[in-house]
Amino acid sequence: MKWSQAFIPTLKENPSDAEAASHRLMVRAGLMRRLGSGTYSYLPMGLIVLRKIEKIIREEMNAAGALEVLLPAIQPAGIWEKTGRLDLLKEILISYKDRSGKLNVFGATHEEVITDLVAKEVSSYRDLPKILYQIQTKFRDEPRPRFGVLRSKEFIMKDAYSFDVDNKGLDAVYKRMHDAYCRIFDRCGVKYIAVEADPGFMGGDVSHEFMAPAPCGEDKVAGKPAIELGHIFKLRTKYSKALGASFLDRLGKKRDIIMGCYGIGVNRILAAAIEQQNDKDGIIWPLAIAPYRVLVIEIDPGDKEVRNKSEWLYGELTKMGVDTLLDDRDERPGMKFKDADLIGIPIQVVIGKKGLKEGKIELKVRKTQKRSLHPVRDILDIIEKEIGSG
Amino acid sequence: MKWSQAFIPTLKENPSDAEAASHRLMVRAGLMRRLGSGTYSYLPMGLIVLRKIEKIIREEMNAAGALEVLLPAIQPAGIWEKTGRLDLLKEILISYKDRSGKLNVFGATHEEVITDLVAKEVSSYRDLPKILYQIQTKFRDEPRPRFGVLRSKEFIMKDAYSFDVDNKGLDAVYKRMHDAYCRIFDRCGVKYIAVEADPGFMGGDVSHEFMAPAPCGEDKVAGKPAIELGHIFKLRTKYSKALGASFLDRLGKKRDIIMGCYGIGVNRILAAAIEQQNDKDGIIWPLAIAPYRVLVIEIDPGDKEVRNKSEWLYGELTKMGVDTLLDDRDERPGMKFKDADLIGIPIQVVIGKKGLKEGKIELKVRKTQKRSLHPVRDILDIIEKEIGSG
Repeated sequence: MKWSQAFIPTLKENPSDAEAASHRLMVRAGLMRRLGSGTYSYLPMGLIVLRKIEKIIREEMNAAGALEVLLPAIQPAGIWEKTGRLDLLKEILISYKDRSGKLNVFGATHEEVITDLVAKEVSSYRDLPKILYQIQTKFRDEPRPRFGVLRSKEFIMKDAYSFDVDNKGLDAVYKRMHDAYCRIFDRCGVKYIAVEADPGFMGGDVSHEFMAPAPCGEDKVAGKPAIELGHIFKLRTKYSKALGASFLDRLGKKRDIIMGCYGIGVNRILAAAIEQQNDKDGIIWPLAIAPYRVLVIEIDPGDKEVRNKSEWLYGELTKMGVDTLLDDRDERPGMKFKDADLIGIPIQVVIGKKGLKEGKIELKVRKTQKRSLHPVRDILDIIEKEIGSG
Repeated sequence: MKWSQAFIPTLKENPSDAEAASHRLMVRAGLMRRLGSGTYSYLPMGLIVLRKIEKIIREEMNAAGALEVLLPAIQPAGIWEKTGRLDLLKEILISYKDRSGKLNVFGATHEEVITDLVAKEVSSYRDLPKILYQIQTKFRDEPRPRFGVLRSKEFIMKDAYSFDVDNKGLDAVYKRMHDAYCRIFDRCGVKYIAVEADPGFMGGDVSHEFMAPAPCGEDKVAGKPAIELGHIFKLRTKYSKALGASFLDRLGKKRDIIMGCYGIGVNRILAAAIEQQNDKDGIIWPLAIAPYRVLVIEIDPGDKEVRNKSEWLYGELTKMGVDTLLDDRDERPGMKFKDADLIGIPIQVVIGKKGLKEGKIELKVRKTQKRSLHPVRDILDIIEKEIGSG
């Protein structure tokens, strides 16, 4: 992508309503903008990061044997009545009466819908086990929207649900999902701590939270602030009993399906990555979820040789499948360098008149701020090596 | 994917509430299930098709220079008041008062939000032109939910918005989007007719609808029934005036941004493809959006040689990047053949004891119902050729 054709509205000043570093930097780096209280528009570069995180989650869920579905946000209130959660969650559920007078709920979570689906489609032990998941937007009338996308009214969740014939099956899938979660956070470059937790309004008896240590965290783990990234629950039969999700076992006996559920806040991984890795100049993206892995900065863009070499490098990197942003804007070098550090692309390549006179291009690693000069002919190898080692 | 590990609940009977062929077949082939009036859960195979369509749309939008964003579904009613559409669309808008008493609207479309965003971020002719788009769920209190996903309360749209300095710019991008739409429908294998249309509540003066000829169509094109797939509009300054989206031109004069908007119903492409291509036995998927391109059917799955050859072929195809479904279920051949035609995978490969004795595997093309026998060693080449010619 060429910056001149992109939509990356960076800001020099911090937004006045932003307390958390991730909130501040997501706005300043042009990743998102606030629409209303607790609602945010993702701009192109923010969305690229979200999609990269979703891809990692999807790969790990599929590898764990989970099947992706997409469930409605609009849900008949009746199924929420059956589990008792229409009343229990009334403070945060967004609901409306449709034109026929029926009460509907916007999904804050999907245990009711998925259990209702499985109740209708699964009848025998032969249909089990199953793990179903989706990556979808949830809605809630959040009492205290704050910290940008960390506590918002509308957020993207990966929610998975497992269905087993017995507790042994649940234990196995719970362990598998636990391990998949560790791989997801590792791959996204986010530090986390898994702790036993209170299942709360989800129900069930065992649950683990995956907490990300972060300065703006509202919870405490080992005395330090930490923003919940994920939460997994052994639900057992709370929902299957309420919604009639049963199966016939090998002996023809009707039994309740044993369930687990497994959530990840997709936006929260993005925000946690920024909370954990930033400095006074801006974001420091982990390579795997960076909006672009390489930023080519043209200084002296009016110079023909600079333009040619920049276009050449941008073209070669793109051909190699390295997602690259080319700062081809007609702006001062100082502003370009400031923007580069703010948006935090891991590898910066600076092409200028002075360097080219000596046949050299500068490479800067955002994380270490280390700069080095390289002959033009070596630059592709050097970048490839940097990406490989990152 | 192996069928035994998938979630493809096919049905022998037509659902009683389904009038349209696509609705009937989407339920029977296990692509979706109804949750409530006008809301549907996409099961894994339905979601794969949706994602393939989204990928085609994304590629064509990006090629046309559009940038992807993701806007909130929850929108403050205030911006809808400014354009006069809070009242105009009150019959179909889903709204709720949040805990602070503020009225919010669930986005049925996003002209207000995107124009508000651009009004705040764009100030100069140098920031223009821009095309922004998203693929996102829309909500409306549909008066007559029917035909499954063709007329539902919750649906996935690709909505794009263009911002130009003058009408000449709008004309150029309108033409570019028109052409991109043609390529999208062509690539998805859906027949369509582009007709001039009434802009209706969107406003503006010029609009074109892309209609898909289909038996259940509620509109008429050249006397024949047809379900709208897409609609593009020259909005001009209706929204930019109302929401203050202006720019300073080269002479420093403040002017309203000239807008266009461009919508595609993603679910409708899926349903239209089925409406246009089915027979008494089931769906006939176009190759580009089929949930899988190849279905390998094991008959006599208890036979060791059959199992070995099926696993071998499934493995080889997967390695070649050909998305393949392996029907490894312990079911009668008759049921497997019926299911195969119902779910409509373009290329069926039948592996049975009898054929293998002669060293042969059967290939059936779903569309033509043409069957042919091939030596085992040729089967990969033959499949590759079928895919290439399809």
